[in-house]
Amino acid sequence: MENNSKTWSGRFNEPVSQLVQRYTASVSFDNRLAEYDIQGSLAHARMLASTGIISQADFSAIEQGLGQIREEIRNNNFDWQIELEDVHLNIEKRLTALIGDAGKRLHTARSRNDQVATDIRLYLRASIDEIISLIKSMQQVLLDIAERHSETVMPGFTHLQVAQPVSFGHHLLAYHEMLQRDTERLFDCRKRVNRLPLGAAALAGTSYPIDRDMVAQLLGFDGICRNSLDAVSDRDFAIEFCACAALIMTHLSRFSEELIIWMSPAFSFIQLADRFCTGSSIMPQKKNPDVPELVRGKTGRVNGHLVALLTLMKSQPLAYNKDNQEDKEPLFDAVDTLTDTLRVYTEMLAGITVNQDTLRQAAMKGYATATDLADYLVKKGIPFRDAHEIVAQTVRFAETKHRDLSELTLEELKKFSPVIEEDIYSVLSLEGSMKSRNHPGGTAPEQVRKAISHARQALLDSSTT
Amino acid sequence: MENNSKTWSGRFNEPVSQLVQRYTASVSFDNRLAEYDIQGSLAHARMLASTGIISQADFSAIEQGLGQIREEIRNNNFDWQIELEDVHLNIEKRLTALIGDAGKRLHTARSRNDQVATDIRLYLRASIDEIISLIKSMQQVLLDIAERHSETVMPGFTHLQVAQPVSFGHHLLAYHEMLQRDTERLFDCRKRVNRLPLGAAALAGTSYPIDRDMVAQLLGFDGICRNSLDAVSDRDFAIEFCACAALIMTHLSRFSEELIIWMSPAFSFIQLADRFCTGSSIMPQKKNPDVPELVRGKTGRVNGHLVALLTLMKSQPLAYNKDNQEDKEPLFDAVDTLTDTLRVYTEMLAGITVNQDTLRQAAMKGYATATDLADYLVKKGIPFRDAHEIVAQTVRFAETKHRDLSELTLEELKKFSPVIEEDIYSVLSLEGSMKSRNHPGGTAPEQVRKAISHARQALLDSSTT
Amino acid sequence: MENNSKTWSGRFNEPVSQLVQRYTASVSFDNRLAEYDIQGSLAHARMLASTGIISQADFSAIEQGLGQIREEIRNNNFDWQIELEDVHLNIEKRLTALIGDAGKRLHTARSRNDQVATDIRLYLRASIDEIISLIKSMQQVLLDIAERHSETVMPGFTHLQVAQPVSFGHHLLAYHEMLQRDTERLFDCRKRVNRLPLGAAALAGTSYPIDRDMVAQLLGFDGICRNSLDAVSDRDFAIEFCACAALIMTHLSRFSEELIIWMSPAFSFIQLADRFCTGSSIMPQKKNPDVPELVRGKTGRVNGHLVALLTLMKSQPLAYNKDNQEDKEPLFDAVDTLTDTLRVYTEMLAGITVNQDTLRQAAMKGYATATDLADYLVKKGIPFRDAHEIVAQTVRFAETKHRDLSELTLEELKKFSPVIEEDIYSVLSLEGSMKSRNHPGGTAPEQVRKAISHARQALLDSSTT
Amino acid sequence: MENNSKTWSGRFNEPVSQLVQRYTASVSFDNRLAEYDIQGSLAHARMLASTGIISQADFSAIEQGLGQIREEIRNNNFDWQIELEDVHLNIEKRLTALIGDAGKRLHTARSRNDQVATDIRLYLRASIDEIISLIKSMQQVLLDIAERHSETVMPGFTHLQVAQPVSFGHHLLAYHEMLQRDTERLFDCRKRVNRLPLGAAALAGTSYPIDRDMVAQLLGFDGICRNSLDAVSDRDFAIEFCACAALIMTHLSRFSEELIIWMSPAFSFIQLADRFCTGSSIMPQKKNPDVPELVRGKTGRVNGHLVALLTLMKSQPLAYNKDNQEDKEPLFDAVDTLTDTLRVYTEMLAGITVNQDTLRQAAMKGYATATDLADYLVKKGIPFRDAHEIVAQTVRFAETKHRDLSELTLEELKKFSPVIEEDIYSVLSLEGSMKSRNHPGGTAPEQVRKAISHARQALLDSSTT
Repeated sequence: MENNSKTWSGRFNEPVSQLVQRYTASVSFDNRLAEYDIQGSLAHARMLASTGIISQADFSAIEQGLGQIREEIRNNNFDWQIELEDVHLNIEKRLTALIGDAGKRLHTARSRNDQVATDIRLYLRASIDEIISLIKSMQQVLLDIAERHSETVMPGFTHLQVAQPVSFGHHLLAYHEMLQRDTERLFDCRKRVNRLPLGAAALAGTSYPIDRDMVAQLLGFDGICRNSLDAVSDRDFAIEFCACAALIMTHLSRFSEELIIWMSPAFSFIQLADRFCTGSSIMPQKKNPDVPELVRGKTGRVNGHLVALLTLMKSQPLAYNKDNQEDKEPLFDAVDTLTDTLRVYTEMLAGITVNQDTLRQAAMKGYATATDLADYLVKKGIPFRDAHEIVAQTVRFAETKHRDLSELTLEELKKFSPVIEEDIYSVLSLEGSMKSRNHPGGTAPEQVRKAISHARQALLDSSTT
Repeated sequence: MENNSKTWSGRFNEPVSQLVQRYTASVSFDNRLAEYDIQGSLAHARMLASTGIISQADFSAIEQGLGQIREEIRNNNFDWQIELEDVHLNIEKRLTALIGDAGKRLHTARSRNDQVATDIRLYLRASIDEIISLIKSMQQVLLDIAERHSETVMPGFTHLQVAQPVSFGHHLLAYHEMLQRDTERLFDCRKRVNRLPLGAAALAGTSYPIDRDMVAQLLGFDGICRNSLDAVSDRDFAIEFCACAALIMTHLSRFSEELIIWMSPAFSFIQLADRFCTGSSIMPQKKNPDVPELVRGKTGRVNGHLVALLTLMKSQPLAYNKDNQEDKEPLFDAVDTLTDTLRVYTEMLAGITVNQDTLRQAAMKGYATATDLADYLVKKGIPFRDAHEIVAQTVRFAETKHRDLSELTLEELKKFSPVIEEDIYSVLSLEGSMKSRNHPGGTAPEQVRKAISHARQALLDSSTT
Repeated sequence: MENNSKTWSGRFNEPVSQLVQRYTASVSFDNRLAEYDIQGSLAHARMLASTGIISQADFSAIEQGLGQIREEIRNNNFDWQIELEDVHLNIEKRLTALIGDAGKRLHTARSRNDQVATDIRLYLRASIDEIISLIKSMQQVLLDIAERHSETVMPGFTHLQVAQPVSFGHHLLAYHEMLQRDTERLFDCRKRVNRLPLGAAALAGTSYPIDRDMVAQLLGFDGICRNSLDAVSDRDFAIEFCACAALIMTHLSRFSEELIIWMSPAFSFIQLADRFCTGSSIMPQKKNPDVPELVRGKTGRVNGHLVALLTLMKSQPLAYNKDNQEDKEPLFDAVDTLTDTLRVYTEMLAGITVNQDTLRQAAMKGYATATDLADYLVKKGIPFRDAHEIVAQTVRFAETKHRDLSELTLEELKKFSPVIEEDIYSVLSLEGSMKSRNHPGGTAPEQVRKAISHARQALLDSSTT
Repeated sequence: MENNSKTWSGRFNEPVSQLVQRYTASVSFDNRLAEYDIQGSLAHARMLASTGIISQADFSAIEQGLGQIREEIRNNNFDWQIELEDVHLNIEKRLTALIGDAGKRLHTARSRNDQVATDIRLYLRASIDEIISLIKSMQQVLLDIAERHSETVMPGFTHLQVAQPVSFGHHLLAYHEMLQRDTERLFDCRKRVNRLPLGAAALAGTSYPIDRDMVAQLLGFDGICRNSLDAVSDRDFAIEFCACAALIMTHLSRFSEELIIWMSPAFSFIQLADRFCTGSSIMPQKKNPDVPELVRGKTGRVNGHLVALLTLMKSQPLAYNKDNQEDKEPLFDAVDTLTDTLRVYTEMLAGITVNQDTLRQAAMKGYATATDLADYLVKKGIPFRDAHEIVAQTVRFAETKHRDLSELTLEELKKFSPVIEEDIYSVLSLEGSMKSRNHPGGTAPEQVRKAISHARQALLDSSTT
């Protein structure tokens, strides 16, 4: 293999054309796997030596050589060559240049098919762990704000219409729940990522007396992939991860939509700190919520990657096909988008200013306590459906008078139902309404504080796991 | 609520137009939830009575009334009305017609928002359980065939080029592994499906002293949704299920691609039973593998539903919005597609005929044992990369002679490497190659049988869980 | 073919299983193509007779028989049988029952492969024509409202922040433009739909002396598909249509998002008529914009169908494969969703109430005329970038004073730039700002009226085409 | 604007954080638009001078400055700064550094919103033109091969089962047709790309007396965008282009699937030149069709971008939102993927070796002339459906004898229908069958040559347009 441009020369009549080389080479993006490739090779080599497939001397040379290459890569002193196709051949070639024949023995009992599958899994495992940790940081910030605003009243919306008064803290906790499910899903996904494909070789296993469990243990895998054909062709884990990522982005897109609406002058519920906004090249007054807008937009990006990977795997026969090389860029970009977004979001949330007065005033519009009036009637013995109808008519009357329900006189109220008494006015207050929803999951500030405390404990528990 | 056409009449100046009614009504498809709606209502009513929110007499009336409605629905005697919008209002209206005021009290302390979320979760939980069971049936069939063919040799492919000989049973077990991951994922998804939203009411909880844990227990939920705003707007579970479903269909599309290729005259690896094929309206000789082709095609359908649901939830502000009504049809169709496909697949697999001779002959083409020759050289002390190069040249030579490696003379072989001896011929045999890959996950028949036995035990264990 | 359950009996050892029959049959959904199937068969038969492939007597019998079948189908008197797989075999079987041997001759020189492709194209062509007409109706309504509100001032938004005052009519015309492009795209798509596949037979053409141009002319096709293999396997037109449909839904989802935000109490820019809203089962005061919410949600549905069809065709070898049967349901549902949505939208728009005062007040917030101040400075000789900076500082000052730019005194304004004079106040007025954008495409009411008049003429022209 | 890090400093209390800067900046990818940005700015400046909005001296300075900047960029001497956010501000800042106040006047009467929309359209127009030209090159190669193989017989497949003999040239022409539709679609898309948004300014137009038609003419646009709000927010053209791109990739994925199957040893219909294949790191004999596999895989990538863009635009309110910045990377990557793929494909096709003997032998399997026998019977007066049944039984008989239809004796054949005579054997030959399909679109070599000649003329005509 003297000539770089003839990697497969023994079998081929002509070298790969330059255009084809550029089209098929992956080193421009898979060099990101270098650390994991070396990590995997070290474990593989140690096992080869331990089982006597290579000598201890060869292993020592490999260990030393890979160590040096790792340094070269970390220090940007490594000369990546597109003619060597991918991260694997680049490193192996350099290793052989450094240590001679021992380097040529590293690839014994493995194939690039199982090697790359191992690398991606190591990469993705590390990425998942980082994302879980970033989610936790965001949750901490959410809980802090929620705690400060457990009693802050705001209009709860359905259909973007005012529905019932809710606690601002309670509203934020909804996102805590979504993120908590996201973390659960990532842990579940991680189980399926964390299995060792190495040992599958090209597709059928190898004739060497390898010890796959040893390699799994060295690399921290929970176990081995149990079928070699599946091991080299499986990309479920990448798809499952992208599905998780798409859901996380979907949650953040929902949050972003709210932040953008809340920032709009007609709402003015919150302000984002200036450092998360940018201006306009033409309109000097503008302060735009760029970050949440970008987050919303990037949701499509991750959905797209999920579709790309599903399309990729559709109808692929066993075992490995070159199509699979297309798994990396979508996966890498999904990871990058997610980690960047979580980081920027956490920082941004910490800088939000909540306009409590505006929130309260907004809750006064839209007859937010109408359900409370209905419930009041029910408690006085009227069947719920009838109570609903009575209140509907009361609201219609109040609307023609441009007044809130709490601004109607007792006399006016009694026209709609004689059972209404003076005590109705405390029921129709925003705080009265909010406090009355006092059960697990409800918006009563007491429940919000309990939920926060429960959430904090759960985060703590998972940290010590 | 005398007049069906004026469901919300108290608040509205005019009834909904007919066109709008048709556009917004969901009863034409959500009546499929009727059993679950009644199940949920019964648990809700029992709790209302238990907590004193309604009387025992009301509960008894509700129980009896819902029982009668359930019978009417089961017997197709129920008169679904589009003017009543959805399954919930249809049933409630009928209940009130049957039992009067008690019926009007059923909706106390709940909203359609938490009611429908509960219904879908009950429906999806049952669907997941059925799908898991169907996957298991398919796995049983796969294991049976794999067992019969643990020693059947076939060409293992990468890039659809002959790579190395593998056991046909081993090949089938790759699909067993995929399905096993699918089952794992469904179990993980089920955890997140199986939480009770009821009690969230419209979005904020309710002012009644409800007991959510009691309802959760009555309905077999693992716990409650901890935030009311999240509870009514969350559709993660539907998306997560569709992502699982898309992966299952992707696996079956891969299997189908192989069956279709294997059925093609040039391959002729297998035959499907006639009852799974159809003919041509013009070409009298045709026998087409319609079922795997349709399965392959239906993959797009489920991918599409996943995209539909992700798009649906993108940027939705809290809490419930009418957009969410669009969650049902994609979800229902994904469930139907999956259950039908698994059923038909299992039946079809059982009827496959394997052409062992053809498989063996195909494995003779394409120098399937070239890796074995390389490994042989390595074991004689040649570094793997050099051995690889030697074999590449040997193959090129053999190709010009139109002979397999095992058909070269020892003299010819020795020209490429003097270390080659007479013992090479057993290495170059298909069975020798296959048997040598004898480690967990490898294709050696011994390993295949171990894998089958392990898989059978795992299926058994999960059945008794 | 005595026995229905043995459609392909001559070639097959066993009939198709019931499960398989249900899984593979398409008659439950493709019977929607019946009218087009008959239309295509009539043209085919007329050509067969004209070229002497069948006799005139046979053609007369076929014509009479198909006429009777069409009546039976229109009157719901046709007995669709799932054992006969699809719409084609159902009709042909009935025809043979009615007219004997002549019926058996209808399928001469064609195959179901080219037959179904013809049917779908006829169906889609009719659907496109209907959709174009529905878009035009919606545009008429838009133009009427835009005309009434050419002078109505509202805050133009970027980033949902107030940017500059615009005419409400101008805002609506943006949607007119989108719909106009949608129509253009549908016309372009129609060109590629309107080509005749019939004559391709199974995949290779036929040995009969057919006259494809005659059939094309009889059916109103612009020409014939020029390659038989392509003709039977091409589904580009369905994908292209779904891409058009996804864009239309995307436009309507954008419009819906605005309507929903505008309906929210904080905005209150518009009211939808009661007949397009529904209420809440629990909150008696609610009036929810269900229709725009559903439209927004249905966008995902159509995007999903597009993905389904792209996935379907990915990697299909030539020529026809059974996968293609999966093209129909996504296509049909895309057409239905689109036609229903356009109808309901047009009706809904006609019933919108515009709150002009609220719009004007909202335009007063957010320093909407800051750009006008900058442009004023530029016209006084200050480079734009410097003017931008001066205004940014002025806005910041005004913000601390809680005043609009027009509410600053001349003295205060002069502190930021001495070139500012009394004439600045007309520049800072909403109407002054709006009227000054007086060039094609700009928001000046004069331009809005010109644009409307241009649009009306264009609609008129296309009607007479 | 002394300090780069405070682009919007006049209005803001604090600079954008580094993390946010990185998250929101687009210069790392939008610098690809530099040429088009300068082109657009030059036309804008010329118009500003022509209408007297800026002086001729300013225009001259701008022209000279932008010319210098263009050189700097082309020579990689331009210092892109992430603090300056995007390509537009980077260039404008440099311009001001070079020519002072005149540079600050360039942005008069425009905004980045209409500027970037103009840049992308110029970029996409050029990309479309290049893609159309690449498609044409590929078609030329296809036609050359088709011409050489107009008489080469191969088995035509449906359902990957042998259906009828077809000409290999005819088969290739199917892809010519697909590509021809792709070109049509790109031309249609180009019409909608080629409209000028400039003049829309931020969203409402501008108060300067601009001449949009002049700018449109200078930049070669067919016309102007007629509504300013639409002009800045419209990304239809990017979506439409990606839909076209997805279809092109879908066509190439179909072709690739065939090449991969045809390369498989069991088929061996073709060979790809070595320079388009790569080997295996473990299996020395492998020669893998990497290029078509990658093309197949990259289909998902482009589908994903289409989904990303559709998701991006879903529910975006008017007018410009920052989400739109996410339009560029998917679009750029779709263009790159497509141009690279077309280039590599064209080169690869030119190097294909067709194994004519193998093709012919494959056509002998699978009773490819069964339809011809049926047609023969019809011509002898038997109704088609009865003929179909007779042939089905004949095939079943031949199958039990392991003989082709042409290998049955006349006596045997007569048992199935007495009308069969000696002349049947010419009908049952591959060439006889192929030649008999002699009508436009049919596979008869005569028709194939006509189709090629027609296609060549069409390519020629479009070149001179």
